[in-house]
Amino acid sequence: MSKRYTLLKKEGKARRGRFVTPHGTIETPVFMNVGTLAAIKGAVSSMDLKEIGCQVELSNTYHLHLRPSDEVIYKMGGLHSFMNWDKPILTDSGGFQVFSLAKMRKIKEEGVYFNSHIDGSKIFMGPEESMQIQSHLASTIAMAFDECVSNPSTREYVERSVDRTTRWLERCKIEIDRLNLLPSTINKEQMLFGINQGGVYDDIRIEHAKTITKMDLDGYAIGGLAVGESHEDMYRVIDAVVPYLPEDKPIYLMGVGTPENILEAVDRGIDFFDCVLPARNGRHGSVFTKNGKINLLNAKFQLDSKPIDEGCQCPACKSYTRAYIRHLFKAKELLALRLCVLHNLYFYNKLMADIRDALDGGYFKEFKEEKLKQWNLNA
Amino acid sequence: MSKRYTLLKKEGKARRGRFVTPHGTIETPVFMNVGTLAAIKGAVSSMDLKEIGCQVELSNTYHLHLRPSDEVIYKMGGLHSFMNWDKPILTDSGGFQVFSLAKMRKIKEEGVYFNSHIDGSKIFMGPEESMQIQSHLASTIAMAFDECVSNPSTREYVERSVDRTTRWLERCKIEIDRLNLLPSTINKEQMLFGINQGGVYDDIRIEHAKTITKMDLDGYAIGGLAVGESHEDMYRVIDAVVPYLPEDKPIYLMGVGTPENILEAVDRGIDFFDCVLPARNGRHGSVFTKNGKINLLNAKFQLDSKPIDEGCQCPACKSYTRAYIRHLFKAKELLALRLCVLHNLYFYNKLMADIRDALDGGYFKEFKEEKLKQWNLNA
Repeated sequence: MSKRYTLLKKEGKARRGRFVTPHGTIETPVFMNVGTLAAIKGAVSSMDLKEIGCQVELSNTYHLHLRPSDEVIYKMGGLHSFMNWDKPILTDSGGFQVFSLAKMRKIKEEGVYFNSHIDGSKIFMGPEESMQIQSHLASTIAMAFDECVSNPSTREYVERSVDRTTRWLERCKIEIDRLNLLPSTINKEQMLFGINQGGVYDDIRIEHAKTITKMDLDGYAIGGLAVGESHEDMYRVIDAVVPYLPEDKPIYLMGVGTPENILEAVDRGIDFFDCVLPARNGRHGSVFTKNGKINLLNAKFQLDSKPIDEGCQCPACKSYTRAYIRHLFKAKELLALRLCVLHNLYFYNKLMADIRDALDGGYFKEFKEEKLKQWNLNA
Repeated sequence: MSKRYTLLKKEGKARRGRFVTPHGTIETPVFMNVGTLAAIKGAVSSMDLKEIGCQVELSNTYHLHLRPSDEVIYKMGGLHSFMNWDKPILTDSGGFQVFSLAKMRKIKEEGVYFNSHIDGSKIFMGPEESMQIQSHLASTIAMAFDECVSNPSTREYVERSVDRTTRWLERCKIEIDRLNLLPSTINKEQMLFGINQGGVYDDIRIEHAKTITKMDLDGYAIGGLAVGESHEDMYRVIDAVVPYLPEDKPIYLMGVGTPENILEAVDRGIDFFDCVLPARNGRHGSVFTKNGKINLLNAKFQLDSKPIDEGCQCPACKSYTRAYIRHLFKAKELLALRLCVLHNLYFYNKLMADIRDALDGGYFKEFKEEKLKQWNLNA
C-alpha cells in the first residue's frame, strides 16, 4: 500500500497531517460531519456540506443496514452516489449502535444477536457482516466491528471484551481484504481503521494498542470514550494510549466532543473527530460563538439584529439575525433548525481549520489557551 | 402615481405584463411563493427562493401579527430586512385567516373580534388595524381587509357582506394613504390591492368590481374563490368579473391553485397567483413532473435513479435521485421535505416563466393544451 498519511508538523504531541484517500485528501486534524442516515439532520444537504467546509462525512452502518438497507445503497452505486457526496466518507461499524440502540442483544464469539430498534426484528451482526455492509456502502474508510463497553465496567469484563474485539478485528481485516478483491465491489480501495478499547484501564488499553498496531491497518481509533467516564479519565486514557499507536497512521477519537474536548485531544495527538453534538445542539437553538454558547430561544434575542456570531462566514450568519432565527424557532419553522445546524457545523469545521493554521504557524499552544479563555468567559 | 403596470401583450384574454415596484420589477403572470410566517415551510431560506426563481414572496398579516408581532418586525426594519429578502413581498390582510383560522369571531361594522388560534387571546382587527400591521411589516403590496365568505352562502348574506367589504376598502385606502405619509413608516410607497368578493353570484361580483374599480387602486384581487365551490363556478366567476376590472392594473386570483387551475386562469386574464399547494404537497412527498404528479413514498421509487423530473434544473433534481429522496422520507430526515418543496416551487415558478414565454411568442393556447394533455396522461 502506498503511504496515505503524512505527518507534516508536530507541536508537542499535537499533529498536523495529511491523509490521502481515493476520494480526496483530508487535512488533519479534521472534524467529520455526522450524517447518520446518509443525510445531516436539520435539512442540511450534501451541497450545504461543501459550503460549510466539511472534509469528511460520517454515516452509520447500523442505521443504513436497517433503512434503506445496504442492498439498496449498493444497487444505487454506493453511499457517495446515493447522497451525492464525492469527498471522503467514513462509516462506523455498527458496533457502537448495536450496544447503545439495539434491544435484547446477545454477544457471542461469532458476533451479536439483537433486535432492531425500529421494528424489533431479529438481526445478527458479526465482523464479516459489518465489513460486507460497509463494502456495500462503499465508504472511503470502514471501521472495525468492536464491542464498545460502557464506563464503568469491571476489569474482568473489559479484559474478556477486548480480547474478543481483537479476534473480531483480525476477522474484519481478512474479510475486507477479501471483499476489496471482488469484481462486484464498488470501492476496491476501502480502508480499515482498527479500534482501541479497554475502558478506563490504562494497562488494558496499552496492551490492546500494541496488539492492534502490529496489524498494519490504515488508521487507528480510540473507542469507548465519552460513554460515561469523566473528562479527566478520557484525557488520561488518550495520554496513555497515543504513544503506543503508530506515528505514521491517523488517530481517530470516536464520538468526541465539545470544542474544548477537541482542543485538548488535538493537544494529545488526535487527528480525527466526530460528534453529533453540534448538529444536535443546533436543532435545539444552542449555538457556538467565539464567546461561548448561547441559546437563541432566550427572550433577550427577540430584537437582536446581530448574526449568531459576529464575523462568522457561515450561510446563517451571512444572511440572518438572531432575532429572525429566534422567531423561526418560536414559529416552529424548520428553517430554524437548518440555520443553526449549518452554523454549528461551520463553527466546528472552521475551528479545525484554525487549529491546522495554528499548527502550521507553530502557535497552537497559544491558540488553545486563548480559545479556552474566550469560550469560558461567557459560559 | 406613476404607471406601475404595463400590459405588454394579449392572447385572447391572457395577459403578459410587467409590474414595477419599489422592490423590483415583477414579470406577469407570476406565482407568489408563500412564506406564511416570514419563512417558506420545509426549511427553505430566502437564499433558496432566489435559486428557484421566485419573484414575489407572500407572508401573512394575521400570523405575523400573532407571532413574532408586527411590532418586532417593524423594529427589525420590516419584513424585507427581517427575512433577508430584497424583492417584492405581498402581505395578505389577515381577512382570510380571521375567517378560516380564528375562533369565536364576531363581525361588526368596525371590524372583527376573534380569539387567537394559538393561545385563545382576544384580538380585534378592522381595516385600520390591518393597514397599520401591514405598514409595520412594510411589504411592497398590502391587501385590503375584507370578509371572505365561504361557498355556498345565501345571496342575502353575501350582499350584506360585500357592502361591508366595500366600506372597509374605503377605510383601508384612507388609512394606507395616511400611513404612507408618516415619517416613521418604513415603506412609504406601500401599494394597496382591493379584493373583489360576491361568492358565486356573478351579478354581485360584477357590481362590486365596478364599485372598487372606481377607487383607482394599485391592483385588484379576486377573493373568495377556491373556498368550497366547483372549478366550473370558479372559472365562470373569473369570466364574469375580469371584464369589469381595469385593464391597466394587475389582477390577482387569491389562493389558486393547481397547475391546471393556473393555466385556465391565465387564459381568463389573471396576472398574480399564490397557493400553499406546492409546498404542502412537497412536504408529503407529492411532487409535480412534466407527466403529472407522483408520490415519492411509493415503493416503486425505492431504486429509481432518475431525478424527480427529468431535465428539471431545480436544486433537488440537479443533485438527487427519487430513491434517495424516498429514503429520506422513510428515515424521517427533514431534508426530504426541503428537497420536495424546492422542487415543487421551482416547478410552479418555471411554469409561470414558460407561460410568459408562450405569451411573448404568441403560442399560449397551444402551450396550454399541450401541458394539460401531458399532465393528465399520468394523473
